[in-house]
Amino acid sequence: MKIVIAPDSFKESLSALEVANAIEQGFKQVFPNIEYCKVPMADGGEGTVQAMVDATGGHIVECQVTGPLGKPVEAFYGILGQTDANSRRTAVIEMAAASGLHLVSTTQRNPLLTSSFGVGELIADALNNGIKHIILGLGGSATNDAGAGMIQALGAKLTDVNGHNIALGGAALATLHNIDLELLHPCISECKIEVACDVDNPLCGPRGASAIFGPQKGATHLMVEQLDQALAHFANVINRQDSPYIKLGCEHQAGAGAAGGMGFGVMALLAATLKPGVDIVTETVQLAQHCQDADLVITGEGRLDGQTVFGKTPMGVLNVAKRYNVPVIGIAGCLGDGADAILEQGMKAIFPIIPSLQPLEQVLIEAQTNLTHTAQNIAAVWSLSLNRI
Amino acid sequence: MKIVIAPDSFKESLSALEVANAIEQGFKQVFPNIEYCKVPMADGGEGTVQAMVDATGGHIVECQVTGPLGKPVEAFYGILGQTDANSRRTAVIEMAAASGLHLVSTTQRNPLLTSSFGVGELIADALNNGIKHIILGLGGSATNDAGAGMIQALGAKLTDVNGHNIALGGAALATLHNIDLELLHPCISECKIEVACDVDNPLCGPRGASAIFGPQKGATHLMVEQLDQALAHFANVINRQDSPYIKLGCEHQAGAGAAGGMGFGVMALLAATLKPGVDIVTETVQLAQHCQDADLVITGEGRLDGQTVFGKTPMGVLNVAKRYNVPVIGIAGCLGDGADAILEQGMKAIFPIIPSLQPLEQVLIEAQTNLTHTAQNIAAVWSLSLNRI
Repeated sequence: MKIVIAPDSFKESLSALEVANAIEQGFKQVFPNIEYCKVPMADGGEGTVQAMVDATGGHIVECQVTGPLGKPVEAFYGILGQTDANSRRTAVIEMAAASGLHLVSTTQRNPLLTSSFGVGELIADALNNGIKHIILGLGGSATNDAGAGMIQALGAKLTDVNGHNIALGGAALATLHNIDLELLHPCISECKIEVACDVDNPLCGPRGASAIFGPQKGATHLMVEQLDQALAHFANVINRQDSPYIKLGCEHQAGAGAAGGMGFGVMALLAATLKPGVDIVTETVQLAQHCQDADLVITGEGRLDGQTVFGKTPMGVLNVAKRYNVPVIGIAGCLGDGADAILEQGMKAIFPIIPSLQPLEQVLIEAQTNLTHTAQNIAAVWSLSLNRI
Repeated sequence: MKIVIAPDSFKESLSALEVANAIEQGFKQVFPNIEYCKVPMADGGEGTVQAMVDATGGHIVECQVTGPLGKPVEAFYGILGQTDANSRRTAVIEMAAASGLHLVSTTQRNPLLTSSFGVGELIADALNNGIKHIILGLGGSATNDAGAGMIQALGAKLTDVNGHNIALGGAALATLHNIDLELLHPCISECKIEVACDVDNPLCGPRGASAIFGPQKGATHLMVEQLDQALAHFANVINRQDSPYIKLGCEHQAGAGAAGGMGFGVMALLAATLKPGVDIVTETVQLAQHCQDADLVITGEGRLDGQTVFGKTPMGVLNVAKRYNVPVIGIAGCLGDGADAILEQGMKAIFPIIPSLQPLEQVLIEAQTNLTHTAQNIAAVWSLSLNRI
């Protein structure tokens, strides 16, 4: 018998690997001698690097880069322990590690100025390490520069009418006159770039990056207007270029508006493909291969609610397991409104792990114990009919 | 397939029948067409009357009686819908309904004065209704009179050296000189009396009623001393009597000290037998018969913890089901410290129903919904292996 354990992390308490270990420990109380396959999972958001590194036996690379407002920050990315299907060494980058909103204090948040330069530095470092396949997770960014900073860090020259380099940040894109990609990092064209993106917003307009995601990064109404125009100008300049590196018309593509327009930048300038994060993760960790001969799949997340079916890890795991008719049980730190939606999608059962009303800190501290207990009890129920028949 | 659902009530939110209904509803989402046998349960404590009335299709009798401090209170008892194995009509009385601590305000608590007279009135009312079998649940009493008030209400004359009736309450027992049982209710001798009792304390001494249970009823150190002597005197007077109604030496019996010495009173004066409450309940509702051909038993309680194994409902249900090798799953409003002890006793699994950290009021209000959800998810896991094999 084989059980696949493929959970996301429990935010603020356990990494995906720790969650998987706790679940395994619980099941082993009931089934000590069956096969367990632990696959730490993620959906492209926070924790994706750690989960994929853990899932593949890879390692974390620490790297000082330029933060969102120009000051140095300690960032990181992951190098996977397995090459991809085409034998390429793969790195995983979370955009937020270099350009995250959490790196900017509330009073300093200003998407006119924040830049994705640090993301480009992480990519460059990975390329310098011989990486040929990069998975980039968007989300949590402080920036609204459509990836301009990133491409500058990779060697692009973005200049104004006088031929001077434009400043960093979304606002300065209004002064852009020309883009020169001649000095782009030489390895970038040989590197496959996959971008984890779970939104379908275009670059500009009322559903664009500035209007939808600008305000949470500190943009006022006026800033939104200014940034929307600057990004539209950036797209116009790009579409005027005659370069084999550039893909035209990306501003209208679904996801172009993700992460302050980073979706646009990576599609137009790095030939990247955008995919739902959990799909990239499931493919990369080869979840389907693990599931095809499994008897049961256990997944989990810190919180299961009505949003879970929209591309969160448990939904991604469920979609893979369904292909092989393997039943899936979910375990959650807590269940929120609408959690039953995932049952309607075919998950067999979901269980919260909270034993009693307690202060949040205690629940977080005891998450591992509670998770193991819950898993043990689920295993015991699952075993009943096995024993009976 | 047959599932027995035999839970206790969830205090402050659901009766045992409501708990059973909620669990059934959850299971029916997964198994709409199997046989369900709902047996509302109790352990002799609060909720025992309602549970047994619900389990047997009986009814509640309301009855005004003398409260612990002499003022009238609205009390009740239950008449079961089924006769017992000897075709006797059976009533269930909770002592606390007439003489409960909750009927006395904190400032008025004084076990020198409180009397179990109202319990005797409830018994008399049941006898007047033709009842031949009484189940009396101890616990939650405000009294420390060793059942003296009860026996007075049933017609006994308790007199001092001058032949005057002594006052009600534990302290007045010090003035007792003679007991005359000639005018006792004529039906009492033909009535089987079973008393639900889960403690083994003797009547007097350091482990006696006054020392152990007096303080929680408002007794000071001095009162404990005074009451302990009064009860010892009561026992001495009883043991001096030469009456076929009286059983001698009961003050040393296990449980004599229960409920302020009520254990002693019912044994010495009413020929009652004391048994663990849950055993009386399981026998009366014929749980064993229901379980013997069941495939699964579900039990539950508002709280499962380290105390559960000491005579609480889930433990009683487990003991019955174990005889027939039927697996038992427990569902709890919450799990407290040491809840796993019941797994060591052979319960297969236990699940709390709290979906997330919420105010207590919300948890109580949503108990039914959460219970149904939890039951549904347990049923789904239980069904997995059935489907697979």
